[in-house]
Amino acid sequence: MTAQEKLTLKTDNHKHICVGLDTDINKIPEFLLKEENPVLAFNKIIIESTKEHCGAYKINFAFYEKDGIDGLKTLIETKKLIPEDILVIADAKRGDIGNTSKMYAQAVFDKFEMDSITLHPYMGGDSVQPFLDYEDRISFILALTSNKSAEDFEKCELLNGQPLYQKVIEKIHDWNKYQNCGLVFGATNPQELISSVSLMDDLPVLLPGVGAQGGSLEEVVKIFDATGKTNYLVNVSRGLLYLDSTPAFGRAAEESIVKMNKTVNSMLLI
Amino acid sequence: MTAQEKLTLKTDNHKHICVGLDTDINKIPEFLLKEENPVLAFNKIIIESTKEHCGAYKINFAFYEKDGIDGLKTLIETKKLIPEDILVIADAKRGDIGNTSKMYAQAVFDKFEMDSITLHPYMGGDSVQPFLDYEDRISFILALTSNKSAEDFEKCELLNGQPLYQKVIEKIHDWNKYQNCGLVFGATNPQELISSVSLMDDLPVLLPGVGAQGGSLEEVVKIFDATGKTNYLVNVSRGLLYLDSTPAFGRAAEESIVKMNKTVNSMLLI
Repeated sequence: MTAQEKLTLKTDNHKHICVGLDTDINKIPEFLLKEENPVLAFNKIIIESTKEHCGAYKINFAFYEKDGIDGLKTLIETKKLIPEDILVIADAKRGDIGNTSKMYAQAVFDKFEMDSITLHPYMGGDSVQPFLDYEDRISFILALTSNKSAEDFEKCELLNGQPLYQKVIEKIHDWNKYQNCGLVFGATNPQELISSVSLMDDLPVLLPGVGAQGGSLEEVVKIFDATGKTNYLVNVSRGLLYLDSTPAFGRAAEESIVKMNKTVNSMLLI
Repeated sequence: MTAQEKLTLKTDNHKHICVGLDTDINKIPEFLLKEENPVLAFNKIIIESTKEHCGAYKINFAFYEKDGIDGLKTLIETKKLIPEDILVIADAKRGDIGNTSKMYAQAVFDKFEMDSITLHPYMGGDSVQPFLDYEDRISFILALTSNKSAEDFEKCELLNGQPLYQKVIEKIHDWNKYQNCGLVFGATNPQELISSVSLMDDLPVLLPGVGAQGGSLEEVVKIFDATGKTNYLVNVSRGLLYLDSTPAFGRAAEESIVKMNKTVNSMLLI
């Protein structure tokens, strides 16, 4: 299955929650620490508890790279636990000159076998192209991020009055020859989302920032539903992973994502 | 020694060449392929041949990540081969929201023990801060890069007519509380370098783009020397690594960097 097929399979059925596997050993239930690989044991239960309900998984590379070789082994093992028909996004935020981006693409798509990646747009078209050469993967390119400092550059107005992040969205359309580009848009910016949703057209959208960062799932669903757009994923990490510190943490995650799906469905116009 | 001390030790003595360890197994001398770890064997000879003459080493993470776990093992072993008093830059181009950047900083500074890193500015101040919290390391933040698509966004004019990359340089000064910020500026942009050098003030500058990408060492030295600025590094990768495919490739690299140093010294005003 291509990344595009995996995405549509879920989002067409209104499974829009992307489970962010930002697994932090300092936050997982203490009883897991006796396991040989506590992070992997935790991820296994989270995946089993959410796989029927989620739209995708997002693996935050930093949380694994911080443990060096061992962390990357856990990342590889985690990927294997995810069912084949669910999109796995490498949240790696890469981007470099052409010959270097080609190596990063090989790392993430060939070596780690991810379906999808997040990319920095700053260096422009030729820096993302080697990722786009993988036609059956999806590259989610940062437009407007969920953090406060998005205002430093992303929201800067250009000569024509357009904010930089909207110019990025325009460029993403130019780069989308293989229908394998998406964009990242922080759910903490509902006003900007309203004013940009028509620019997004048919590009898949990944929205971080719901939960710990203050974004609202309801608001996002309302905005997209009003335009009939369905190919979007709302990432939830901290708001799903660490709800319970007992052996029932998997059930807590499942109940939470089921509740989010109900919220999504209750908001749909039809 | 702090990263700042390592940098000054070399650049005060006009050692400005940064050896870029973008080692590609498809380009190294064929006779090395019989070694247990050809890339490591190659790096060892390159480091031995250049350590007396260089200003720093830059390890391009992509070239190691592409080989997964094995590649990262080579990266770690390569770092160990570099003398303690020489700056090692992780060319990793990271940048994410705060809690994630913190993990990347742990990976690169604590786990891989690098002195320095390259960062994407797109997400703004709070995305680079966790790296800057390491006071004794240097974070080189992308201002204007060496690739052609730098024109897509980096050269975009803002409302006040200022190009985005110059706003980034201004912000880097704001972020430079611990005197541990630097910037990346592509040597392929000499006109922009001339018009921006006064903005850089005392920030260390890392300049990629000399050699294979078309930038000129002489031009860079002339521009900085005219302002008395010495804390800069000119990266050379492909133009040093693959000059010779016989067992004399180390000597070829040494002769080449010695020649570059002579060029630098011959251009100095005093």
